[in-house]
Amino acid sequence: MCGELNETHIGNTVTLVGWVASHRDLGGMVFVDLRDRAGICQLRFDPDLDAETLTRAGQLRSEWCVGVIGEVVSRGENVNQDRSTGAVEVVIHTLEVFSEAQTPPFAIRDDCDANENLRLEYRYLDLRRPMLQRSLLTRSKVNSLTRNYLTSQGFGEFETPVLTRSTPEGARDYLVPSRVHPGKFFALPQSPQIFKQLLMVSGFDRYFQIVKCFRDEDLRADRQPEFTQIDMELSFVTADDVMKVCEGLLKTIFEGTLDIEVQLPFERMAYADAMRRFGVDNPDLRFGMEICNVSELVKESAFKVFSATVQAGNTVRGLCLEGGAERFSRKDINGFEDTVKVYGAKGLAWVKVGAGEWSGSIAKFFDDEARQAIESAMGASPGDLLVFVADRESVVNPALGNLRKQLGKEMGLADPATFRFCWITEFPMFEADEEEGRLYAMHHPFTSPLPEDFDKLHTEPLSVRAQAYDLVLNGNEIGGGSIRIHRQDVQHKVFELLGLSEEEAQEKFGFLLKALTYGTPPHGGIAFGVDRLVMLLTGAASLRDVIAFPKTTRAADLMSEAPSVVDGTQLDELSLKVTRTTTEDAVS
Amino acid sequence: MCGELNETHIGNTVTLVGWVASHRDLGGMVFVDLRDRAGICQLRFDPDLDAETLTRAGQLRSEWCVGVIGEVVSRGENVNQDRSTGAVEVVIHTLEVFSEAQTPPFAIRDDCDANENLRLEYRYLDLRRPMLQRSLLTRSKVNSLTRNYLTSQGFGEFETPVLTRSTPEGARDYLVPSRVHPGKFFALPQSPQIFKQLLMVSGFDRYFQIVKCFRDEDLRADRQPEFTQIDMELSFVTADDVMKVCEGLLKTIFEGTLDIEVQLPFERMAYADAMRRFGVDNPDLRFGMEICNVSELVKESAFKVFSATVQAGNTVRGLCLEGGAERFSRKDINGFEDTVKVYGAKGLAWVKVGAGEWSGSIAKFFDDEARQAIESAMGASPGDLLVFVADRESVVNPALGNLRKQLGKEMGLADPATFRFCWITEFPMFEADEEEGRLYAMHHPFTSPLPEDFDKLHTEPLSVRAQAYDLVLNGNEIGGGSIRIHRQDVQHKVFELLGLSEEEAQEKFGFLLKALTYGTPPHGGIAFGVDRLVMLLTGAASLRDVIAFPKTTRAADLMSEAPSVVDGTQLDELSLKVTRTTTEDAVS
Repeated sequence: MCGELNETHIGNTVTLVGWVASHRDLGGMVFVDLRDRAGICQLRFDPDLDAETLTRAGQLRSEWCVGVIGEVVSRGENVNQDRSTGAVEVVIHTLEVFSEAQTPPFAIRDDCDANENLRLEYRYLDLRRPMLQRSLLTRSKVNSLTRNYLTSQGFGEFETPVLTRSTPEGARDYLVPSRVHPGKFFALPQSPQIFKQLLMVSGFDRYFQIVKCFRDEDLRADRQPEFTQIDMELSFVTADDVMKVCEGLLKTIFEGTLDIEVQLPFERMAYADAMRRFGVDNPDLRFGMEICNVSELVKESAFKVFSATVQAGNTVRGLCLEGGAERFSRKDINGFEDTVKVYGAKGLAWVKVGAGEWSGSIAKFFDDEARQAIESAMGASPGDLLVFVADRESVVNPALGNLRKQLGKEMGLADPATFRFCWITEFPMFEADEEEGRLYAMHHPFTSPLPEDFDKLHTEPLSVRAQAYDLVLNGNEIGGGSIRIHRQDVQHKVFELLGLSEEEAQEKFGFLLKALTYGTPPHGGIAFGVDRLVMLLTGAASLRDVIAFPKTTRAADLMSEAPSVVDGTQLDELSLKVTRTTTEDAVS
Repeated sequence: MCGELNETHIGNTVTLVGWVASHRDLGGMVFVDLRDRAGICQLRFDPDLDAETLTRAGQLRSEWCVGVIGEVVSRGENVNQDRSTGAVEVVIHTLEVFSEAQTPPFAIRDDCDANENLRLEYRYLDLRRPMLQRSLLTRSKVNSLTRNYLTSQGFGEFETPVLTRSTPEGARDYLVPSRVHPGKFFALPQSPQIFKQLLMVSGFDRYFQIVKCFRDEDLRADRQPEFTQIDMELSFVTADDVMKVCEGLLKTIFEGTLDIEVQLPFERMAYADAMRRFGVDNPDLRFGMEICNVSELVKESAFKVFSATVQAGNTVRGLCLEGGAERFSRKDINGFEDTVKVYGAKGLAWVKVGAGEWSGSIAKFFDDEARQAIESAMGASPGDLLVFVADRESVVNPALGNLRKQLGKEMGLADPATFRFCWITEFPMFEADEEEGRLYAMHHPFTSPLPEDFDKLHTEPLSVRAQAYDLVLNGNEIGGGSIRIHRQDVQHKVFELLGLSEEEAQEKFGFLLKALTYGTPPHGGIAFGVDRLVMLLTGAASLRDVIAFPKTTRAADLMSEAPSVVDGTQLDELSLKVTRTTTEDAVS
């Protein structure tokens, strides 16, 4: 390969194929940079070459696809330090042009600043950029490492259907009209959850699949309508067994693609602790700056916003930004306030800590004693900035938790070369919808409670913890799963708590419930998002940089112009009529 | 595992989990056959067990899911020769019932004769049958062997989209309505053909993917609406290079799953020879019985059907069924005639060869000399049955070719334990539609002609051969591919011959054609059907036996009852209206 040449090849005759990355004609001598998926090397066409080859070499232009034969020679003093092949060049004696190329609409370089929509339209050219080449090769390697590891652990890969039944809960399904059964529809799977549980009922006790899943949601920057999961399910296991297999898997993936060592076992943190210390269930543990609850210290404060909040049964919590007093301007702090407002906070109170004094608008409300108590609780020193949010816990936690993550990046606390894994466990089984006065399942209704909490199902369901576990990496949830319910009495009780009658349960989950009556093994599983995982692994800025042919945030493929209008006969065959058409000319 | 126990484990204490396959109570002693995916072993509960365990053991019923601990002991004289675990049994001291089971609607045994629709409805139970367990585990192994082999050959696995653009040619697409772009549709891919060619343009020179593809066709017994392909594409290669990689792959798959040795290289046969000798382009080479052209010998025959056919420029060909004179009755021969009529033949002429004489209705038209000439040409001996079809070559070939395949099975000539691979090469580029007076591409319009036939594109296109290759195994096409066109002049000429204007070509294949102008490497590829491959490998009778959750021939999933009616709001969101509904209550 072009990118593999080095001094050990000097004197060898080599055959290379690839694309012209650049070309220059220096007084009858032609230099060409040739690129393949391994990298770039320099070709030299000397003036003593036969006239035809030399002429053809002079005609070469960017992105022509060529093959050459030549001898590897040293570049002597003229080493190019910027590339691994920089010590050598190849003196060419034979050139074949496989095909010429039009001038590409943008330069094929990692620092290309062309508009993303243009690059998506010419995705096949954008994919020639070394960064995207590396991303997709890494993705391929992740999938390969995953399969080999799981196979070595006794798993089989079993394919589940893509044309499935639409489920009444969860995200919006992509539908596929049936021609043979007019008026009926398949749905593309949001996950193979039910099928993998059925495989456990069937006795395939270690299932995995790297599988495409689909959600028709309004897309955020970090979502795609089709995404890939590493999906697993195991029978006769505990949550510990599942987590252990996953830890081996993640170690294999990360050590197989990066030059790092992954320590096992991963840290574990109960959901309640994560929320208390970090405000979120996917904390970034690469740095400290934990949330501090100062409610007790401010409940009698002269600052009425704080004291009234605590006296109403709510909470006041804060973060200590080390060295933040000087570092952050009033404008920066306004920006932090914008962040917490996104999560429903009404404002952000702050003080700058000096030597024996505070500054800032609320400083005057705190006497020496109060100041010292708060500084001590928050571990503050002179030069630090303290920020506070006062509200219900359900507002304060996400507000400060997400502000903390943002600050971790802005303050350089989150080292990009560190990979900090953590299991979050003991999630609540249920969330209460206070307005509707009913319970919802926090994961899904087949998630098993912790055995020691079974009894509480009857007495205090909101304190029942689930045998659910999420794997968090550097502040991102990369996987989640649970032990499922295999006892019918427990399943019935959970449905009852969720307000589902026997009939409704049958209507919604009929064939799975039936299957569970024919001898169900204890089982559990997990699913990891491949796109996110590879993004974190490669440091890519966007999911689109780790997917070969991604969709835009408006769920369109700009290259093939999909979705598109189809023939009327196709719709007739499907017994369908379009009731409203788009006014746009092309997708975007 | 239950199925792994043998005499080497005697004296060991083992923990087993699985399902009760059968149970019998013999005078206070309980015997249970316990099944897992590895097989079945016998458990024994002795009368001296604690009362609770013994009582519970007596309650065990078929398909209960249980765990046990016990000691492996010899069965002494009472060896069960029918199973690999038959020399031992496990004396149980601890029993845990994970879950009880209803009585299953059919017995979980390979010789179960329950109606297939019932078995599909309870697929999770049918999948417990040892035969289906083996099939799916073999399938998993085939996929794993494939990935490891191709990775070792420098391939990367790259995922192509499932939500793609509908293509105007080929089979019928499954459509997916877009909510964001009302009136527009995605299509599920019939193959990743265009995307894999774009990956070649992008410089990923060795692509593979094990990928789901979709066709909304009226299903035959051996088709499924979603099917799985091993899909490959390579740059800078010849057809020989592709075939060599594939041969290594097939050898790896077959030797990795069966106790056989696969000889390389595979036989190759030009399309023209396959048609002449076997009448089909997917011949079963496990036996001879080649087609014999007797046109020259019968063109003056007194049997006018033969002589008139030849004189009209058509053909008379036949098969010699060794020992068929006695073996086959008049009724059997009528059955053969039904077969050839399926392919458009008007009838089947036949004679039985005796010692120096023929019998049968047309025997009287042939004198001694004619008889001897035909017997000699067809290699016939006394006791053989000769059958003939007289018609256009395009009728005679498929009629006799398919009759030959049927006879190969009926006469026991096709050994099920033999795997005979053959490449069919040098396919014609074009087929003529005589009625429409135009040419069609036999593979697809991006298939490259053989370089030595380039010139004939301009003079005699129907004699141009393609760089296409199919891999045939025991009479089944298991894969097909080609070297693609990468020269724009050749591509334009091919479009012209297919009657496509520049505008039409752009309309149909726009974004691929554009991509090909930016420096295209020479490239080619192939795709194998995984379902068919695994079916042949396991000797399964149906594709449904190698797919975990298959659809019926009416494209329905009887277990989940998909497709199904969906909410009106779902259709409203998609700007769709159903114009006709089905009258059926449930899918079938």
